[in-house]
Amino acid sequence: MTANGNTKLWGGRFTGSLDPIMTQYNESIYFDRVFYDQDVRGSIAYARANVKTGILTEHEFSEIERGLNAVRKEWADGTFDIKPGVDEDIHTANERRLGEIIGKDIAGKLHTGRSRNDQVATDMRLWLQDQLEKLEGFLVDLLKVMAARAEKEVEAVMPGYTHLQRAQPIRWSHWILMYASFFASDLQRLRELKARVNRSPLGCGALAGNPFNIDRDAMAKELGFDGLIMNSLAGVADRDFVVETLQWGSMLMMHMSRWAEDLIIYSSGEFSFVKLADAYSTGSSLMPQKKNPDSLELLRGKSGRVFGQMAGLMMSVKGIPSTYNKDLQESVEPLLDHVKTVGDSLQIATGVLSTLTILPENMLKSLTPDMLATDLADYLVRKGVPFRETHHISGQVVALAEKQGKPMDQLSFEELQGVDRRFEKNVMEVFDYQKSVEMRSAKGGTSRSAVMEQIEAVKKALSGE
Amino acid sequence: MTANGNTKLWGGRFTGSLDPIMTQYNESIYFDRVFYDQDVRGSIAYARANVKTGILTEHEFSEIERGLNAVRKEWADGTFDIKPGVDEDIHTANERRLGEIIGKDIAGKLHTGRSRNDQVATDMRLWLQDQLEKLEGFLVDLLKVMAARAEKEVEAVMPGYTHLQRAQPIRWSHWILMYASFFASDLQRLRELKARVNRSPLGCGALAGNPFNIDRDAMAKELGFDGLIMNSLAGVADRDFVVETLQWGSMLMMHMSRWAEDLIIYSSGEFSFVKLADAYSTGSSLMPQKKNPDSLELLRGKSGRVFGQMAGLMMSVKGIPSTYNKDLQESVEPLLDHVKTVGDSLQIATGVLSTLTILPENMLKSLTPDMLATDLADYLVRKGVPFRETHHISGQVVALAEKQGKPMDQLSFEELQGVDRRFEKNVMEVFDYQKSVEMRSAKGGTSRSAVMEQIEAVKKALSGE
Amino acid sequence: MTANGNTKLWGGRFTGSLDPIMTQYNESIYFDRVFYDQDVRGSIAYARANVKTGILTEHEFSEIERGLNAVRKEWADGTFDIKPGVDEDIHTANERRLGEIIGKDIAGKLHTGRSRNDQVATDMRLWLQDQLEKLEGFLVDLLKVMAARAEKEVEAVMPGYTHLQRAQPIRWSHWILMYASFFASDLQRLRELKARVNRSPLGCGALAGNPFNIDRDAMAKELGFDGLIMNSLAGVADRDFVVETLQWGSMLMMHMSRWAEDLIIYSSGEFSFVKLADAYSTGSSLMPQKKNPDSLELLRGKSGRVFGQMAGLMMSVKGIPSTYNKDLQESVEPLLDHVKTVGDSLQIATGVLSTLTILPENMLKSLTPDMLATDLADYLVRKGVPFRETHHISGQVVALAEKQGKPMDQLSFEELQGVDRRFEKNVMEVFDYQKSVEMRSAKGGTSRSAVMEQIEAVKKALSGE
Amino acid sequence: MTANGNTKLWGGRFTGSLDPIMTQYNESIYFDRVFYDQDVRGSIAYARANVKTGILTEHEFSEIERGLNAVRKEWADGTFDIKPGVDEDIHTANERRLGEIIGKDIAGKLHTGRSRNDQVATDMRLWLQDQLEKLEGFLVDLLKVMAARAEKEVEAVMPGYTHLQRAQPIRWSHWILMYASFFASDLQRLRELKARVNRSPLGCGALAGNPFNIDRDAMAKELGFDGLIMNSLAGVADRDFVVETLQWGSMLMMHMSRWAEDLIIYSSGEFSFVKLADAYSTGSSLMPQKKNPDSLELLRGKSGRVFGQMAGLMMSVKGIPSTYNKDLQESVEPLLDHVKTVGDSLQIATGVLSTLTILPENMLKSLTPDMLATDLADYLVRKGVPFRETHHISGQVVALAEKQGKPMDQLSFEELQGVDRRFEKNVMEVFDYQKSVEMRSAKGGTSRSAVMEQIEAVKKALSGE
Repeated sequence: MTANGNTKLWGGRFTGSLDPIMTQYNESIYFDRVFYDQDVRGSIAYARANVKTGILTEHEFSEIERGLNAVRKEWADGTFDIKPGVDEDIHTANERRLGEIIGKDIAGKLHTGRSRNDQVATDMRLWLQDQLEKLEGFLVDLLKVMAARAEKEVEAVMPGYTHLQRAQPIRWSHWILMYASFFASDLQRLRELKARVNRSPLGCGALAGNPFNIDRDAMAKELGFDGLIMNSLAGVADRDFVVETLQWGSMLMMHMSRWAEDLIIYSSGEFSFVKLADAYSTGSSLMPQKKNPDSLELLRGKSGRVFGQMAGLMMSVKGIPSTYNKDLQESVEPLLDHVKTVGDSLQIATGVLSTLTILPENMLKSLTPDMLATDLADYLVRKGVPFRETHHISGQVVALAEKQGKPMDQLSFEELQGVDRRFEKNVMEVFDYQKSVEMRSAKGGTSRSAVMEQIEAVKKALSGE
Repeated sequence: MTANGNTKLWGGRFTGSLDPIMTQYNESIYFDRVFYDQDVRGSIAYARANVKTGILTEHEFSEIERGLNAVRKEWADGTFDIKPGVDEDIHTANERRLGEIIGKDIAGKLHTGRSRNDQVATDMRLWLQDQLEKLEGFLVDLLKVMAARAEKEVEAVMPGYTHLQRAQPIRWSHWILMYASFFASDLQRLRELKARVNRSPLGCGALAGNPFNIDRDAMAKELGFDGLIMNSLAGVADRDFVVETLQWGSMLMMHMSRWAEDLIIYSSGEFSFVKLADAYSTGSSLMPQKKNPDSLELLRGKSGRVFGQMAGLMMSVKGIPSTYNKDLQESVEPLLDHVKTVGDSLQIATGVLSTLTILPENMLKSLTPDMLATDLADYLVRKGVPFRETHHISGQVVALAEKQGKPMDQLSFEELQGVDRRFEKNVMEVFDYQKSVEMRSAKGGTSRSAVMEQIEAVKKALSGE
Repeated sequence: MTANGNTKLWGGRFTGSLDPIMTQYNESIYFDRVFYDQDVRGSIAYARANVKTGILTEHEFSEIERGLNAVRKEWADGTFDIKPGVDEDIHTANERRLGEIIGKDIAGKLHTGRSRNDQVATDMRLWLQDQLEKLEGFLVDLLKVMAARAEKEVEAVMPGYTHLQRAQPIRWSHWILMYASFFASDLQRLRELKARVNRSPLGCGALAGNPFNIDRDAMAKELGFDGLIMNSLAGVADRDFVVETLQWGSMLMMHMSRWAEDLIIYSSGEFSFVKLADAYSTGSSLMPQKKNPDSLELLRGKSGRVFGQMAGLMMSVKGIPSTYNKDLQESVEPLLDHVKTVGDSLQIATGVLSTLTILPENMLKSLTPDMLATDLADYLVRKGVPFRETHHISGQVVALAEKQGKPMDQLSFEELQGVDRRFEKNVMEVFDYQKSVEMRSAKGGTSRSAVMEQIEAVKKALSGE
Repeated sequence: MTANGNTKLWGGRFTGSLDPIMTQYNESIYFDRVFYDQDVRGSIAYARANVKTGILTEHEFSEIERGLNAVRKEWADGTFDIKPGVDEDIHTANERRLGEIIGKDIAGKLHTGRSRNDQVATDMRLWLQDQLEKLEGFLVDLLKVMAARAEKEVEAVMPGYTHLQRAQPIRWSHWILMYASFFASDLQRLRELKARVNRSPLGCGALAGNPFNIDRDAMAKELGFDGLIMNSLAGVADRDFVVETLQWGSMLMMHMSRWAEDLIIYSSGEFSFVKLADAYSTGSSLMPQKKNPDSLELLRGKSGRVFGQMAGLMMSVKGIPSTYNKDLQESVEPLLDHVKTVGDSLQIATGVLSTLTILPENMLKSLTPDMLATDLADYLVRKGVPFRETHHISGQVVALAEKQGKPMDQLSFEELQGVDRRFEKNVMEVFDYQKSVEMRSAKGGTSRSAVMEQIEAVKKALSGE
């Protein structure tokens, strides 16, 4: 019997010892210790249920509860002493320590009918529930800032782009609300996801179920779950709740990346529509004049990071047969980093949006009369000319202006009539950005009333209506 | 004016022509023609709404309706004649043909206030709705077969595996139901996804909204949508409904891959638990004895394919600024193939499961007494010995049997007592696979009653309760 | 015996038939027929080698050669008649047809000791070799245009960006050469890749090797391979040559995406540094003034597509055990599309670059004096002030100019001295973009001589020196 | 001026301060400190070159060198005191500390003409060079064990599988060498990759090049680089050396995953071909009999992890315009973890392979006579019957044996003749696994001589011949 073989959970029959790299490759204690509280809570619920099955006496249970609370306190106080090479994971560590505190005779009964397979799945789900609550809060905060800012700055008009080419004038608020629309869908998805995370695998055992007829519903209730994973093999095989969280976070960060990309472009010298607060910018070690939108670039860059976590885990899970395989340990680290990264990113984005300054005069300067070419075509449409023909006519006006090297609204009335006789004097009224914007008053459009209606829709989404 | 420049939708001002590779690189008609019906339906709804805005007269509308129905019929009959290099996409093609049928004066009014940006998003969503209905049907079929087969073959007992090592005896039905549990979650997610796909972008225009106050709600209703995309910029920028579909399909196929992997292993010569129907196997061109589970391998392989579609599209969408960019065209082909692949895979899986034969005698042969080591430990647990100690004792029994080269249940009572005196005569009753299985009667376990309860849960999931 | 079971290659013992979806799910003929020529060439080489092994007589060989040439001609002429449900892949189809042309007695000898496993690997490698040659040609073309354009337009000076913020003036040619540097590395990698693709698996059999002592070296030589895959199991298990091609193409397209992104930004109205030729732009169906860089957006979007192919295939291959598994069939379609997409993209990029117009006056307009803040700091460095201090001083000058609302070069000498007394009269000479550019004359810099040296380096890379 | 704004590198003009989450989101010191030695080496080389440019005196250089060596020693000794919120990255930290040791007047001259953009790229490349050397050593070790084990155990014969179905008998060594073939290609690729990593970006400045005509070649030489990145924009924009490393590692781990998958299956109870050393197995907390191949499962699972790193980084890099963007900071953490994971994995794999036991008697037991069906077909081929016919005949023999429920080699001579009269008495000699294996003597086959030749090829690959 080797020195440390003796203390491993499966110590009964092993005669060799691990090599040091293998020990470190295998152990998860240095990251799964974040689950210490969930592990303790799960064990207490499990022990309590085992009073009813007759495995534990009331006294044994209260000793276990006392001991586990003491273990938890050690973690919380930072005094828990991890035994390197022995405490390979949080479950092993906690049970080892429990035995030291209350004695092995009672502590040795805790794990009856349970496996680390259902234990770790329980810990992870409990932890994730808490985290998703937090993320929901951060996401709601961002959406509130979006709605507030859209409401306050509804007057600002800027170029709307397709293909990054100036297309039609829009309200700045309309731009904000596009992203609010994306993030509101993320919020809806998050709420659906939570329902699937919030199901209990406790009592599934190693794979085949619990042989002491444990009351899984009671444990689930004590731990705050909404229901059970109904098949014990699934209970230990499943990391879908992680994959789905990573899919959710990847999509959210995909939105974040597009939002950041827009703002990076808008804060370039050539656009200059917005100015980031110093708190979210950094300078250059070489170039004194530089003020870089590092916050936004990190948001954009970390979108790749979180996607990679999802892609990597899907590959790992895809490649295994059923029930628990050790490959599943690879779900923990990505989850921890993913949740942190998404949470930080939401807070950074809220900070950036709360503190940036818009430069409406630059937005206006960037508007050009040819952005009203559609309005010019629509002018003739209102006179009964088929749109396809008006589109062609308006295109000729654009070409004429380009050829003459002057803005479209500087063409004379005669020049316009030279293109098409149906233009009348009032055609010049078309060249008004405010009017153009207000024309788009159908639902979802960029007119003031349509924008205000969208703000109300975002507010409703927050409350889950 | 070049020959074909003239017929392009934006023909008014372009003076150069495309190069042939660019034409082909750019055009989507050869794949987006699958949307011909949706494109026609969308255009009819749009034209009808434009009677109310005053853009079209009743007569013009009925001409457009007549013409579009004729266009649709040509597609359905396979007589639609694509003009290479001119009909770059389904929208252009349909409008071109409409003009030929009803004349350009009326046809030229159809596109008023609309853009291909909202048009293509409408077409894709309408098409996807229909497809998701079909996929739901295929998925329900698979789950029904799973439930039925689990019910019928509930007697078969097989080894349950963790780490691909024999762990504890389980029911074959219990194994089936693990996957039913995964697929039932896929079904739930699909139903949530449908609600997000089923929202109308029609009336968003190019980006800024419709300037003729079109009734978007009426159009959405006519087309069978449940609601609107509330921000016109989002309406044209958004391919989340595709990304989410691909995330959904990738997760489903991840489950499929694990299911296939299990069955591939179970149909190997060494396991021989199941035998695939000839209809889902193929032979070898060189080795006459081979019968290969090609169907299962393809299911497993295509899981990578559909993941790749999701990963690729996420990368494309992540890398762009807001609203429509041509990059989004890259969402169409992956979606088409994804939906087809997932649909075919569900049908193949249903076929495989419906027709495979199980070999219960081989399953039994593969059970070994050491799989009851936990039951042996539990035997002592019931006598009050702490589990951690019984686990150690049972481990010593396993080691003894291994050392003596005989199965654990062939050890004599004296040998067992040599390990631990608390073993009594009735210990031999532990070595009974049926009994072991029936012991796992807690919810989700592998006992008959627990399995039957799971079957009911699957049936309930089908009805969406 | 079913009707079509009889004609399958493994027809001897199967008694069921495939279901129609399975047939279609399984068959590859509709895409692997592109390998028809390679399949014929491989078969002729294989047959020739089997004269030496004694399997075939000279007469039999020449009949096979005649027949296969006839089969090839049918494919080339478009007259090959695929038998649906029978010709499941190109190998089966060609052998079936060969038998019809020369009779089954001789045709039936062709496949002796060979398997479709080594056959398909041979076909794919032969096909890929040809394609990689073509891709190399396209890549060299692009690099030549880059070098030529960089040489011709070396005078143009533009803002260089970091973080998309104006940083320091650079030559337009210097910008081009950054991408030439990336693509030159792609070229180097391609040449290394080719050496690994160009190894022959023919003669590996199904997995265990050829039992008739076939001369693999002779076959490899006839087919133009440079060497052998030295392990027969590896020969049939390996799709690394596909994975590596897809990794290569994904990295190349990652460069392409960044290049396209730059040009999209540079062709926005706000930047207006470049103007795309009409041949590589498209218009809007709604907005007459729009000219969109669709070519560049497609290049950027397809970067995701090709990445997805790589990601998907890696997942498929990662998830399988050794030697041939049907999952590997999933390597073919991604490869075909990948090679086509990369090839088209290279040609489009070359077209775009060959035909775009630069607008040097706009580049100049976009330069701002604060981009010379580093030069200002360097001015004091040359007077012995530590850089870290000069960086701070120059930052104060930038702040002063910003505060006073005038460009940095409009500050009076007195104002500069107010910041730091070490500024002397000649400080105003700093504000000269040409001078700034010419100062960067160390290797790799943006001075004329440094740029010319880089052009030479690109030219050398083309020749593989 | 805020408290900490003052101490930032760009401290001159910022008037706001970072928020705490932003500080932490932005800073890299907690992971990039691993580059401390490379950062010091790079700075010393840079300072030495700046003596020649006249920026530094000899005395200043020797002070800087002394100071930097002291800084390095502090890191090595673990006494370096990171200033939270100030030392945002290793470059800032080292320069800050240098100033404290030698005074700001001299230390402040170090960064002249340099930027963190070229500095970090230099650090990363220097670090990676060292790491790739180590990885090469680990990979060579694994290949040596493979060659040695293949040589020693060449007698063992086992079933070869395609589609996980028993196909033909092969040597165990032949199986080992398949993977040696894959890993030898990884070795070749690694050597090519190193040449691209080993190029110096030092002297590129922020983007536009060095304005003091610094001797980049001399610095590169001092630091052990083989050449330069020839374009200064590329020098700071490029993370291809990271992407390529991650592509390389992902492919290597894809091989590792397949290797592990094979061994996991071979160590299942049903196969039992190999037995892992206890050092690379773990037990179950619940099931006393379990011995799980955790090492192999981790290798398989971590294959997903490293792929995810590659996928994530490619997405991040793909989505940015040219030169340095802060998104590139996201390349560091994946690289660090990737290199560690691949290195550990190679060592674990070597350990596993060095210590596992093969069970040749179980391999033999798993061989079945129908695996010789091809040999039976070949028997008739040698009598001149076309293979396609012999394949059919042999298939009928297989079917007959199956129907009669006895192994193929137990059919009587009369039964065989009943299938085909051309079978003669000596047909029974076909049923000999050793003979079958020895027949595959063509290059790459499974005969003893062919296997020995492959071992030599692996040995050659190690020396890079």
